[in-house]
Amino acid sequence: MREIYADHAATTFPRPPAVAAAMTAYLNNIGCSPGRGGYKRSLDAARLVYESRSRLAELFNAARPEQVIFTPSVTYSLNLLLKGLLRTGDHVLVSSVEHNSVVRPLSRLAGELELQVEFLQCNPDSSLDPLQVKKKLRPSTRLVILTHASNVTGALLPVYETGEILAGTDTFYAVDAAQTAGSEEVDFAALRCDYLAFTGHKGLLGPPGIGGMCISERAAEITEPLVEGGTGSRSEQERQPGFLPDKFESGTQNVPGIAGLNAGVLTVLDAGTEALGRQKRELTERFRQGLAQIPGIKVYGPTDAAATTATISVSIEGMDSGDLSFILDQAYGIMTRSGLHCAPYAHRTLGTFPAGTLRFSFGYGSTQLDVTEILAALKEITTAR
Amino acid sequence: MREIYADHAATTFPRPPAVAAAMTAYLNNIGCSPGRGGYKRSLDAARLVYESRSRLAELFNAARPEQVIFTPSVTYSLNLLLKGLLRTGDHVLVSSVEHNSVVRPLSRLAGELELQVEFLQCNPDSSLDPLQVKKKLRPSTRLVILTHASNVTGALLPVYETGEILAGTDTFYAVDAAQTAGSEEVDFAALRCDYLAFTGHKGLLGPPGIGGMCISERAAEITEPLVEGGTGSRSEQERQPGFLPDKFESGTQNVPGIAGLNAGVLTVLDAGTEALGRQKRELTERFRQGLAQIPGIKVYGPTDAAATTATISVSIEGMDSGDLSFILDQAYGIMTRSGLHCAPYAHRTLGTFPAGTLRFSFGYGSTQLDVTEILAALKEITTAR
Repeated sequence: MREIYADHAATTFPRPPAVAAAMTAYLNNIGCSPGRGGYKRSLDAARLVYESRSRLAELFNAARPEQVIFTPSVTYSLNLLLKGLLRTGDHVLVSSVEHNSVVRPLSRLAGELELQVEFLQCNPDSSLDPLQVKKKLRPSTRLVILTHASNVTGALLPVYETGEILAGTDTFYAVDAAQTAGSEEVDFAALRCDYLAFTGHKGLLGPPGIGGMCISERAAEITEPLVEGGTGSRSEQERQPGFLPDKFESGTQNVPGIAGLNAGVLTVLDAGTEALGRQKRELTERFRQGLAQIPGIKVYGPTDAAATTATISVSIEGMDSGDLSFILDQAYGIMTRSGLHCAPYAHRTLGTFPAGTLRFSFGYGSTQLDVTEILAALKEITTAR
Repeated sequence: MREIYADHAATTFPRPPAVAAAMTAYLNNIGCSPGRGGYKRSLDAARLVYESRSRLAELFNAARPEQVIFTPSVTYSLNLLLKGLLRTGDHVLVSSVEHNSVVRPLSRLAGELELQVEFLQCNPDSSLDPLQVKKKLRPSTRLVILTHASNVTGALLPVYETGEILAGTDTFYAVDAAQTAGSEEVDFAALRCDYLAFTGHKGLLGPPGIGGMCISERAAEITEPLVEGGTGSRSEQERQPGFLPDKFESGTQNVPGIAGLNAGVLTVLDAGTEALGRQKRELTERFRQGLAQIPGIKVYGPTDAAATTATISVSIEGMDSGDLSFILDQAYGIMTRSGLHCAPYAHRTLGTFPAGTLRFSFGYGSTQLDVTEILAALKEITTAR
């Protein structure tokens, strides 16, 4: 049975062969840690890290490579900005479709710091009217945090419009690009945001275990690190150095991950984000049209292809999404993710809590044949019932 | 010129070929994320993570594999336990040779939480008398934190004796095994500690970017996570799940790193920690004896081979350690690390602050020939002056 991978919103697979090759090349040809010695292998490691940092700055249009911070995951990046920025009593605006990587740390902080957390209520298709931001913004609002796209429906949120609304205010602005980096235009400067959190192992085609964040100069100054420790710089100081990127990068870095991500980003830059996004969107659009012709399938999220990523959530009436995912896997070799997708708020917004949905998501390795076979399988399953 | 790598205390190099092979095998043959889907590739990833966790539990003698938490680095592990455990006004005992991965977070917390941080003063050779712990322990002491071995001199601290002293008290006990795991006996049960922080890329022979911690059941219950987010479990809850290991593992895991570490740990288990440690100790002992015969070289740390790891710090009178490291690299291909080694307190203890020392450290790939050539180079350098 042919395998059909339709879970690219979880992680990309298969990756460009250059990714594993770059990781192996680092381990075999360099192998050492950057900034920890003056010998060639250590300098080579530092150069590799700088190359990857520069390439990400190019991709995201960050003014200085040092504004790109490496972290173990986008979850870490989001925790870092929330815990590093927020203070007692702060007012925070957050969309109603955020992932648990925002919901859970924010929920804990809300209790500890008596935060005033207010939701920007998304529409039932999980789109968001930027007027919500205008309406709920206060002069004292400390932070607005938005995911660029829902990981459940693929709905794109108005992150650029929100940037315009917030420009010039004292409010900090964070965008979670976990679902969009590498497929949608993610422009740090044009977003006018303070924090752009990203992961390496989805649209950037890198390995799991590496992610990062672009950070504005004003945010870098006042954000506290999540982890302090050895940086190889200013070792005599018992306080963390204050400059970028060292302030936020302590301990031996994940250089194999950074090398793999570097290869992934190079692939993205070579192919072009726009071309990669267009290809996924075309597949998704064909999938959406096919779904509309299968009776009994409900599709969630915006219906306009331009308003979504390559992620689609569906349900079949009277059928558990877990069962459906299981049948697709066992009988058709189609890999999907069912349930709540670590995003209970998004499902509450959609009215699909707590049952959840079945999620299909396309990516770098997806083909027209995949779409054809998935549609055929769904037709067979719904007809057989 | 032959390369001689003598910086194993920074990271191991070269690694067993099985490490890169395991990472590539994961990326090519599995590639997906554990716990995020029900399909075979996701289950295979979960099995791989569990295998690595179990193997570490075996190595460290932890009762349950779930007590082993994966983290991006030992620096993260140390930050997690300090920030997750300590509360306002707590009394903390810490050795005077700790790394900046303890010093820097503790220094920040000391200010924010009005901690009472007291030093367990090490001897000028950086050894520690366990009586120091007995003397300074109060009934209210919240935490004792000790590195198993100094990363500057290799001096082994009395971590087992301290465990005996603390057993049965309410004081939490943390051991930093960054410099010892894989070469010294590191037995979580026998240490009677609550936190055993380790890194994957030194004595455990894995790649950089992966580390972890063993945690006691009582500590797991009250320690707050450093990062909250998606765990693939209890997705409906807006609070982090309370059970191990999910409480402390949020976001997509570094599965390539875990796979590489798994291969490293298997190598350690196959060879045996004792045999690996003995081999390094023999090289170090011969190196120490050779150093004693070169006039003008001062060696720091305990003189008894059984009291140290395979790390030795030296200085040549009137010569900057950075210059010496540079000459060794450029003229002899010998890679070392000079300066403060991210451990200013250790150098204060030794009386080598702020100039620092030159550090040699041996490991898995070190040979008798390495020792011979390093001694010959040092003889030549000191004679030429």
